[in-house]
Amino acid sequence: MALPTFHDVERAAARLQGIARETPIQTSRRLDAHSHATVFLKCENFQRVGAFKFRGAYNAVAQRHSSKPVVALSSGNHAQGIALACLLMGKEAHLVMPEPVNPIKRAAVRDYGGIVHVPADPREAESFSRDLVQELQGEWIEAFNDPDVIAGQGTAALELLGHVPNLDVLLGPIGGGGLLSGTCLAAHGINPEIQVYACEPAWALDAMYSVKENRIVPQEHPRTIAEGLRTSVGTLTLPILRDHLAGFFVVEEREILTAMRFVYERMKLVIEPASAVAVAPLLRQEPALQGKRVGVIISGGNVDLTQYFDWLSSS
Amino acid sequence: MALPTFHDVERAAARLQGIARETPIQTSRRLDAHSHATVFLKCENFQRVGAFKFRGAYNAVAQRHSSKPVVALSSGNHAQGIALACLLMGKEAHLVMPEPVNPIKRAAVRDYGGIVHVPADPREAESFSRDLVQELQGEWIEAFNDPDVIAGQGTAALELLGHVPNLDVLLGPIGGGGLLSGTCLAAHGINPEIQVYACEPAWALDAMYSVKENRIVPQEHPRTIAEGLRTSVGTLTLPILRDHLAGFFVVEEREILTAMRFVYERMKLVIEPASAVAVAPLLRQEPALQGKRVGVIISGGNVDLTQYFDWLSSS
Repeated sequence: MALPTFHDVERAAARLQGIARETPIQTSRRLDAHSHATVFLKCENFQRVGAFKFRGAYNAVAQRHSSKPVVALSSGNHAQGIALACLLMGKEAHLVMPEPVNPIKRAAVRDYGGIVHVPADPREAESFSRDLVQELQGEWIEAFNDPDVIAGQGTAALELLGHVPNLDVLLGPIGGGGLLSGTCLAAHGINPEIQVYACEPAWALDAMYSVKENRIVPQEHPRTIAEGLRTSVGTLTLPILRDHLAGFFVVEEREILTAMRFVYERMKLVIEPASAVAVAPLLRQEPALQGKRVGVIISGGNVDLTQYFDWLSSS
Repeated sequence: MALPTFHDVERAAARLQGIARETPIQTSRRLDAHSHATVFLKCENFQRVGAFKFRGAYNAVAQRHSSKPVVALSSGNHAQGIALACLLMGKEAHLVMPEPVNPIKRAAVRDYGGIVHVPADPREAESFSRDLVQELQGEWIEAFNDPDVIAGQGTAALELLGHVPNLDVLLGPIGGGGLLSGTCLAAHGINPEIQVYACEPAWALDAMYSVKENRIVPQEHPRTIAEGLRTSVGTLTLPILRDHLAGFFVVEEREILTAMRFVYERMKLVIEPASAVAVAPLLRQEPALQGKRVGVIISGGNVDLTQYFDWLSSS
């Protein structure tokens, strides 16, 4: 498969016009003071389905020029993105959601008209998905290792740079690398001088080694709270990351929680742990960020607050 | 004291220009679908100090044309607003914060350079404050029963109507009535047809009776989770409310929690319980709101999430 380009990101943006939400960019005097930087958060937690994943999913579904059903494997935001994209385009969406899966996420997928499949053995989710594609004669859309998905994810950075053109640095969390590779294409299509850093949990540190060794280092026992980042990079995302990234910031679990709490309490934004991974390097005042104009892609806000509201209603 | 007018709200807006944040207006397809209305949330949770209270506090401090120290009595957002306003204007701020007070709020006041006083007996906080004003030869600024405070609070609705002029209805939570009376002045200065409704917890239902009986009905044993709404109305807010309000929506505790959770999980906004009081009538599909264009003043987002993050870090 050919690697996507900046031009693909621009075309994805045209396709998403009026369909994806142009999410707000939030700033905070307190975050700037704590980080010694000037920070712009691109709030994809306000995106449709609550995460940037809608951008790539919609772009990919739109590029499958057939009425065939779409099949995807995801227990998270990609599943919701595909389900809503198919709903908007009148296609049938089949989502393979292996256990453990948050019942709220499964309900959300069904709300968008998605058909949920739960493989009996979660370890066989991939072969289950392949069989389903075969059986339905369906279109398969991978969560990040797909050129249209990558191009779609890049539109968040494209929008951010449209409003704040003179950024020095862009930060985003890394799991499979779909968001970060799209962000690299968008940033360097506009200005090759922008430094794009990937932010990765110390407890799921495969992407950094993959880029260093230029091979896909598998993610074997990821334990991080940032569940969206537990995947390995792919054959398309790796070469883009290798060619474009300025480096990695490795983030401890404790820092993820501190950053998440800062963003909730000080900035009043509900974000998911993966998003906090990209804020943490600012709060620890990484030297490479000092005095810089820094854009951060806040990936999403899909968290389960049942525990908090149960406590609140009993107190 | 003369009642404030629409002209005072306009002058307050000029004073706050470039100092208060022009907070974003958020919309949500899901909220519209659930409420059968078209809803615009004016997000004062993103305001400086995390609440609309900064507007009135700053306007009132700016109108005290002296270098005298400022004294205020508040365990909540008014204290933070006064402290920050005084910091910005180079005045000394004395905040009487009777127990029980959230240590985070006290720390925030001190961060802004405010001097915190804790009366030994919380029941004597008022006489303690009066003595302090005497002793310091200070300027006293009441939390809501002050014409400059009321005019300042009205600037949130003024901004909202500046961007979304054709609203049918405005909703806001009611405690002492500072926010609501300012909102009434702003709304009816622009368009006398706009219906302004006050939203009040069933467990702190004094404002509704005060307006009905046209006298200040004291708030005796308020129990609501919306702690900011536990106060009684004042001699300035009551006549404005009486002359302008279209009515009251009474909200149960269960509804406050449901609305709060909806706004966190679906709209990704951290709001305080008082703000949820003004969203609840939409979620129960109040007949007066059906098919209408409804503006809601989201009062603030100062909540203590310690319990949630403790749980998250131990799980």
